[in-house]
Amino acid sequence: MRPLLSELAGDAEIELLLGDSAQLAAMLRFEVALAEAEADAGLVSPVAAAAIAKSISSFEPDWDDLAAGMRRDGVIVPALVRQLRAALGEPHASALHLGATSQDVVDTALMLQLARVIPVLLERITALEAVLSGLVDRYGGRALMAHTRMQSALPFTVADKLRSWSDPLARHRSALSNLRPELLVVQLGGPVGDGSSFSGKREEVARGLAALLDLGLATPWHSTRDPIVMFGSRLAALTGSLGKIGADVALLAQTEVGAIALAEGGSSSAMPHKANPVRAELLVALSRHAAGLAGTLHHAVVHENERSGAAWTLEWLTLPPLVIVTGAALQHATGLLSGVTRMGDRA
Amino acid sequence: MRPLLSELAGDAEIELLLGDSAQLAAMLRFEVALAEAEADAGLVSPVAAAAIAKSISSFEPDWDDLAAGMRRDGVIVPALVRQLRAALGEPHASALHLGATSQDVVDTALMLQLARVIPVLLERITALEAVLSGLVDRYGGRALMAHTRMQSALPFTVADKLRSWSDPLARHRSALSNLRPELLVVQLGGPVGDGSSFSGKREEVARGLAALLDLGLATPWHSTRDPIVMFGSRLAALTGSLGKIGADVALLAQTEVGAIALAEGGSSSAMPHKANPVRAELLVALSRHAAGLAGTLHHAVVHENERSGAAWTLEWLTLPPLVIVTGAALQHATGLLSGVTRMGDRA
Amino acid sequence: MRPLLSELAGDAEIELLLGDSAQLAAMLRFEVALAEAEADAGLVSPVAAAAIAKSISSFEPDWDDLAAGMRRDGVIVPALVRQLRAALGEPHASALHLGATSQDVVDTALMLQLARVIPVLLERITALEAVLSGLVDRYGGRALMAHTRMQSALPFTVADKLRSWSDPLARHRSALSNLRPELLVVQLGGPVGDGSSFSGKREEVARGLAALLDLGLATPWHSTRDPIVMFGSRLAALTGSLGKIGADVALLAQTEVGAIALAEGGSSSAMPHKANPVRAELLVALSRHAAGLAGTLHHAVVHENERSGAAWTLEWLTLPPLVIVTGAALQHATGLLSGVTRMGDRA
Amino acid sequence: MRPLLSELAGDAEIELLLGDSAQLAAMLRFEVALAEAEADAGLVSPVAAAAIAKSISSFEPDWDDLAAGMRRDGVIVPALVRQLRAALGEPHASALHLGATSQDVVDTALMLQLARVIPVLLERITALEAVLSGLVDRYGGRALMAHTRMQSALPFTVADKLRSWSDPLARHRSALSNLRPELLVVQLGGPVGDGSSFSGKREEVARGLAALLDLGLATPWHSTRDPIVMFGSRLAALTGSLGKIGADVALLAQTEVGAIALAEGGSSSAMPHKANPVRAELLVALSRHAAGLAGTLHHAVVHENERSGAAWTLEWLTLPPLVIVTGAALQHATGLLSGVTRMGDRA
Repeated sequence: MRPLLSELAGDAEIELLLGDSAQLAAMLRFEVALAEAEADAGLVSPVAAAAIAKSISSFEPDWDDLAAGMRRDGVIVPALVRQLRAALGEPHASALHLGATSQDVVDTALMLQLARVIPVLLERITALEAVLSGLVDRYGGRALMAHTRMQSALPFTVADKLRSWSDPLARHRSALSNLRPELLVVQLGGPVGDGSSFSGKREEVARGLAALLDLGLATPWHSTRDPIVMFGSRLAALTGSLGKIGADVALLAQTEVGAIALAEGGSSSAMPHKANPVRAELLVALSRHAAGLAGTLHHAVVHENERSGAAWTLEWLTLPPLVIVTGAALQHATGLLSGVTRMGDRA
Repeated sequence: MRPLLSELAGDAEIELLLGDSAQLAAMLRFEVALAEAEADAGLVSPVAAAAIAKSISSFEPDWDDLAAGMRRDGVIVPALVRQLRAALGEPHASALHLGATSQDVVDTALMLQLARVIPVLLERITALEAVLSGLVDRYGGRALMAHTRMQSALPFTVADKLRSWSDPLARHRSALSNLRPELLVVQLGGPVGDGSSFSGKREEVARGLAALLDLGLATPWHSTRDPIVMFGSRLAALTGSLGKIGADVALLAQTEVGAIALAEGGSSSAMPHKANPVRAELLVALSRHAAGLAGTLHHAVVHENERSGAAWTLEWLTLPPLVIVTGAALQHATGLLSGVTRMGDRA
Repeated sequence: MRPLLSELAGDAEIELLLGDSAQLAAMLRFEVALAEAEADAGLVSPVAAAAIAKSISSFEPDWDDLAAGMRRDGVIVPALVRQLRAALGEPHASALHLGATSQDVVDTALMLQLARVIPVLLERITALEAVLSGLVDRYGGRALMAHTRMQSALPFTVADKLRSWSDPLARHRSALSNLRPELLVVQLGGPVGDGSSFSGKREEVARGLAALLDLGLATPWHSTRDPIVMFGSRLAALTGSLGKIGADVALLAQTEVGAIALAEGGSSSAMPHKANPVRAELLVALSRHAAGLAGTLHHAVVHENERSGAAWTLEWLTLPPLVIVTGAALQHATGLLSGVTRMGDRA
Repeated sequence: MRPLLSELAGDAEIELLLGDSAQLAAMLRFEVALAEAEADAGLVSPVAAAAIAKSISSFEPDWDDLAAGMRRDGVIVPALVRQLRAALGEPHASALHLGATSQDVVDTALMLQLARVIPVLLERITALEAVLSGLVDRYGGRALMAHTRMQSALPFTVADKLRSWSDPLARHRSALSNLRPELLVVQLGGPVGDGSSFSGKREEVARGLAALLDLGLATPWHSTRDPIVMFGSRLAALTGSLGKIGADVALLAQTEVGAIALAEGGSSSAMPHKANPVRAELLVALSRHAAGLAGTLHHAVVHENERSGAAWTLEWLTLPPLVIVTGAALQHATGLLSGVTRMGDRA
């Protein structure tokens, strides 16, 4: 059973895309593609690459052993590679994971996962924009009292308010659409990130790997994590923009203001007359959580030497929750605004 | 299956104490005790209180309905109370949850849960102190080069180093031991926190409730959350002190320094000669995550009006992860230091 | 001229207590008291201690040289000690700063400064409590609509609302009053914090120093910073409680709600009819800034080895601003609430 | 006298560009350009616009009155406009600031200030890249032990290490160079951001204003602050990348490692043999401070309604310090690396 709090802060679809099974699948894709790219580069034999692909196609992981490996090594790759080589057997075992290091696998797998997550986020932004557009159509021309510094200011229109909700979404959509060259790239550097474990063919292997995995090309980035952190900041900014919508809705929905009406309101255990703007407040909570996670993630840029277990693990602790919170916020924002039954000042 | 990352950042024991089942059990304890205290205060009949206790003793929740309630109401209590009243049936249904509001239940349940978590943390601190004490016995007199500003400074002893690890633990232990009067208190305020829903008997009912639940007494604190936030800060400070131990161990264990040896080291997928101080780095990562969560939690003190869905939900998003991270850090610190096989400068 | 933003976020009194001149004065107090305590312990001659006191009593710092020292050494103490020894001259120069390290001076000076700051904060809390008490007297019995989850809930009284503002203040006051044993203590450890530079008399010297400076006694705490960080968290929690007041006032003062009236309102450059609750919103801004600073300060607990320039400097970057923001918030809260001219629902 | 801490965390050049005088100058530029653009659009007479330009060219502000205005109104614009109109006199007084609101002035002024700050940052990045390039020339081919997870891993070269320092700088430089279309834009919305105060000519006036001020064009963005927040995140990521350099240098410079030698080292008040890598540690401290400020700044995206005094003020509390810290970090990074006298493993 999923935790009850997942109803508010979880996102089943994105949790799946970021979950252990998805990560493992992405890691296996990496190892198969690596062998194929290395075969193309003449580092392993085509027979070995084919054997690796075949073995991995029917690979069944020993999850307990992976968990034990995680605990012992701080990363599952050593245990996974041992399992994969055992399943593959000789004479091709050493051709698997050839020249690669744990971080090549984990980071590239993350990129494969994010390459699936980002379109989901983009679709949801588009869906939310459509809901906003519908609100413009239905209520855009109505009068609405604007508020500045928590005081009634001057009347404007519902369309003006809605523009302040949709303008940032266009920016976030554009930014997320343009992340590929900087963010969604292969990681291939070998043990210390200099590519020397690929017998002078890192570039060639990396190019092949990128093509096979439909990712961009990059110099090894084991210890340079700014693109990941800026991605996290973008997510927090997006969630913040949704938090602004939530704050506005909660203010407009106040009993004394009544400038928005919602189809559904949360009930109270003690006050049956109330209809709480639950999702509006939730958007504020999620945005503050996202802001905090993004701030913490920034500490991961201080990635000491060629691989920092401290900084890298800190990414794992903060980025996935940040992605999930963002996904949840998008869903709740769309749900909230889909339920608007009136907008504009009370007559 | 638990997520693989739980091997590093999870804590099975504490996750259980903070999980949905434990929360529900604590909520049921609250409702039973409330009815009993209200019976003692003459607000409900003893027969009703007995019926409530009996009904709840065999209550089986409909988890799907609770999840739906969470999503709709932002809190499970309205759905739970409906389920409980349905199970109880007439004529006593209205005697259940009498005068209480959702926040009374959720907050008091949290205190009951924390009342079980804190002793676990204290035991673990004590266990860690014992390990440190053992290290003093074994290695305390050995010479160790002290380092200031990342440079060799002057020699001191292993005991001096260990004192810098244990001194803060004593403070954290003392602080956590003394939280009860301020933190572990009943919440009982009714819908808007003024106690008026208890027919003039809030004090009496609260006193009875506190006695039955072995919690302290307090004025309603629906919107005044500083004790919770300071508890979170204490946890982050404790985790930070463990992060300091981790940072020190990682520095001492450097190949070039070699002033500590660890029984177990994480393996590398590409460099079999390495023995990585996985848990030492992990402690640093956990402490930075905890620092961020504690900072975010501080935003929850800005709790607008009599109940803020935004600020309250933000606590749920940050406090439990913070407790879990703290628990995990304590376990890893003890595990790490239990595996020390040598400490002091290389001869 | 002070920056214009200081009108909102600054605190002239506390800035002075934390400023360079105050720090220097505290450092000089340290050096005089250290010499005296060391004379009592037989480490330096009484003549030397008297000469040090006399020389320091007329010492005029070369600020440019201190600034250059700060830039070069990351701390002003080496330059300051050189200046002090030059002013003192032989034969007593080496008796000054005997056995001490930079951190002994800086940290003890900070404690001397905080020992003056905390009473200021306490006085301001008490003053704010008096204002709140006055509001209870004037408006406590009036009806006020309570709001939960941003919706009108049920009526309660102004006194109920005011209790939610004053309850946390009592806790913060109590906590700040009780900091001395853990926080306001001398720092005396010598170069690597083991006290070995005091020829076996660290305890004696530290006791004398503590008595002379009216500070508590402690083992050296160069690298164990949890009391400082918990002090910062307390300040953020206090500021957060003031932010809650600000948020409430801003909500109550809304044009549509009108449950509080303020003597003064900020004017708008474009809308002369408006009276903005400037200080109410400011309290929210200050509390969020304080929350962030407190979270960052937690990272300083991860203080590697015997002295971390990184972690220690991070304290300097975050703690003083946090204290100032807290002071400013207290002043603005008192100013804001002193200007309440009506409270309670509109008739 | 500047605070001593400014030697570490300050940046005189950028502080000047962000200071009150620079802000005032930018605000005056805004008012002159606004009048001119409004004259072009036929909203004010050319005579009035000329009179405004002339009056402002010799305007001497009453700073005390501006400070009082800041305290009263939370923003200096109402006081400033009064001063400007008094200096201008009739009959043109009402033509000044016509249709604009405080936020139009403050936000556009900020953009004018940032338009001068960003080139400074870019020049410094370029200068730092040149220093790194010089290090490649001098030491790039030397052997250096790579470290992963705080353990010696395998040898690579100094050039490989230096690439991990320079790769992110190229990304940050590119990103900062491309901010103009999204960030450096005029703010012109009038009291509630709908442009209605410009008699149907907001677009025309905004276009003219943008051309005159050499800024981009945008729809009003009073309450949509994501570009500012993403700018802050970029600064924190840049500072983080410098923090990574600092962390690496501090690790390489360890006595036991000795893979880098620095011309200058900070001295110790107690240990004359030490040469502390002061700036290396400082870079770490600055990066952690920047990470925290960026996280806090994200909360400002939750900007309620058409103008939030809380969220807007929070930007003022966090963005300028973040810019200054970034500037300081760039200077210190260049200073630190300019002083490298040897790099590579000890023979």
